[in-house]
Amino acid sequence: MNGLDTAIREADAAAYVVYASSQDANMRYLTRFRTTDPVVYIRKPGERGTLIVPQMEYERAVRESPAAVITRSDAGLLDFIKEGDSRMRATARMIAGQAGGPVLVPAQFPLGLARELEAFCPVLLDAGTVESMRAVKTSDEMDRIRTVQRAAEQAIDLAVTLIRKSRGNGGILVLDGEPLTSERVKTEMHRFLFGAGCRAVDTIVSCGGDTALPHHAGSGPLQEDEPIVIDIFPQDEASGYHADMTRTVVKGEAAAEIIEMHRAVREAKALGESMLRPGVSGAEVYQRVVDFFGEQGYESTTEGFLHSLGHGIGLEVHERPFLGPQGETLSAGNVVTVEPGLYYRGIGGVRIEDLGALDGQGFRRFTRYGEELLI
Amino acid sequence: MNGLDTAIREADAAAYVVYASSQDANMRYLTRFRTTDPVVYIRKPGERGTLIVPQMEYERAVRESPAAVITRSDAGLLDFIKEGDSRMRATARMIAGQAGGPVLVPAQFPLGLARELEAFCPVLLDAGTVESMRAVKTSDEMDRIRTVQRAAEQAIDLAVTLIRKSRGNGGILVLDGEPLTSERVKTEMHRFLFGAGCRAVDTIVSCGGDTALPHHAGSGPLQEDEPIVIDIFPQDEASGYHADMTRTVVKGEAAAEIIEMHRAVREAKALGESMLRPGVSGAEVYQRVVDFFGEQGYESTTEGFLHSLGHGIGLEVHERPFLGPQGETLSAGNVVTVEPGLYYRGIGGVRIEDLGALDGQGFRRFTRYGEELLI
Repeated sequence: MNGLDTAIREADAAAYVVYASSQDANMRYLTRFRTTDPVVYIRKPGERGTLIVPQMEYERAVRESPAAVITRSDAGLLDFIKEGDSRMRATARMIAGQAGGPVLVPAQFPLGLARELEAFCPVLLDAGTVESMRAVKTSDEMDRIRTVQRAAEQAIDLAVTLIRKSRGNGGILVLDGEPLTSERVKTEMHRFLFGAGCRAVDTIVSCGGDTALPHHAGSGPLQEDEPIVIDIFPQDEASGYHADMTRTVVKGEAAAEIIEMHRAVREAKALGESMLRPGVSGAEVYQRVVDFFGEQGYESTTEGFLHSLGHGIGLEVHERPFLGPQGETLSAGNVVTVEPGLYYRGIGGVRIEDLGALDGQGFRRFTRYGEELLI
Repeated sequence: MNGLDTAIREADAAAYVVYASSQDANMRYLTRFRTTDPVVYIRKPGERGTLIVPQMEYERAVRESPAAVITRSDAGLLDFIKEGDSRMRATARMIAGQAGGPVLVPAQFPLGLARELEAFCPVLLDAGTVESMRAVKTSDEMDRIRTVQRAAEQAIDLAVTLIRKSRGNGGILVLDGEPLTSERVKTEMHRFLFGAGCRAVDTIVSCGGDTALPHHAGSGPLQEDEPIVIDIFPQDEASGYHADMTRTVVKGEAAAEIIEMHRAVREAKALGESMLRPGVSGAEVYQRVVDFFGEQGYESTTEGFLHSLGHGIGLEVHERPFLGPQGETLSAGNVVTVEPGLYYRGIGGVRIEDLGALDGQGFRRFTRYGEELLI
């Protein structure tokens, strides 16, 4: 964690402070402690950091976190409250007392607490140090992402198998005598993922006209001869790490436009992946794919390729580095998705998404799954 | 939402602004829109509020949210980025442009964005207006909480039934030839809840010495003649609302201390529930229970009753009003848990938790489940 020490010293701060629950990826990354309610983490240069928790969380925190742990009560919180401070003011006073000087905080630090803290010490804004640290994964983190990615592939395979085994009947897909709906496919995938210790939310199984909206979750019977976009981004409950994967399939005959879009998207993905290496910027890779789509007759406006090319993934589904118009320079150890897509009203949408890691040479894809449109 | 209009006017602000994903309960409450990435909500007095989303979320937002919806691009974001603004600066400029004057923001508003916004307009801190609105539930919200509470009761009943059907063997509980472990009971409960459309995290099934730590999640074989604490707080995935429920059971013979603690906890819960009515403060109810425990010989320090008596519940598991030392005055429409507990090293812990709503007269319990210790 030398990056954080450097940031603290360069800011002339006494400590770096986070106030958040473990839903905040920085907090989970720095402490590995899981908590629904916000806790305080204070790190001084050269130290391992201190987690300040309620009395009743003390022993669990000691067991789960590599940080030093003290109770809020030992840090003075209850005394300050007894003296008449509001809870927020008392929390600020406790932080200032523990930090012993100016504090450096992340951009997400809550304004209400910052305003109270300013009564006790300067509050300096950090420019994404922990986010930058999180963007470069250790091999342990890569293993965790690979593990949840394997589960994502099995879930996608389950969906593809259901669709493949279905039969068209009056335009809709039917399996075992029942319409094969978006909801049914999602439930089967979620049940599988649940058994694998993963949670998936906002899963997409959209079909036909709905696929023209990239984030349409889909509903109702799936149709034959129409594109079906399956996009899943499960989180491993124990580790907190995510996977992310998308495939587009058609059961039956695909429209010529969809076949062409699918070919262009596959080529765009291969092109994007081939450009990923340390030193290149996410913006360059994105722009090259925009240009490629343009050469193929596909725009990148309110139709066509209307989202970014990909994103880092880890404790958050979307994190640094981004492969989009403002994408920063890439480094070895980044784990990113590559997910070009094309969307047209009246025709539909196609998206394919893989993920993998950058090493010194280029992109090592973690995703192991075919890209066939017609199943 | 007149409370919010009043707060905006009293602060002499032009608008109330939230910047968050729907993991933020205020954002979900105000917009009913689900999103993993942060979006902007701007509300001016007398208007229904405007949600500013990426292009590709536009149609989904229009469908899901009662707010007016515009794209970030229509609000100027992309133009500002093209002019060279950082994403954060551009977001601030967009917000200031849409608000047209001083902005009122919640305490959780991110400091980084607030500092950028201050370059364009005053940023005023709101004192919990939306949290206060959320604390008074509509009948629709109560129905949603009751629905997920029914699922919690069924999950607890599943756990109790597994424990009841088990048999002691060398001190540990065995069911169907396998040790009945904490993990097995949690998995069965989670599988049931998953099928009911709910998600549970950090569920507690702790036993013996582990029960002396209120938030110990528990692990390994459950034991006969020892207290088993089962605490579950599922969230309905579709509505976002939570339930919360705890029971303590013993399979076999309970120690005399545990039987006494269980009796005292039941009486404390009944006492706490009997005091709940509009106009009384959460702090008074908490203190009365502390006093009751004291009369019974149980302290409220680092052992004994070492957490608060309960909390509001809704889109967050823990929200206003709190039944603790700083608990505010209660109102009709509050939905709260009541969960006294006693914890002693070398003896174990006992907690019982119900939830319900305050009406004009008192507390209407939603929880429908027995409180037996010995099963």
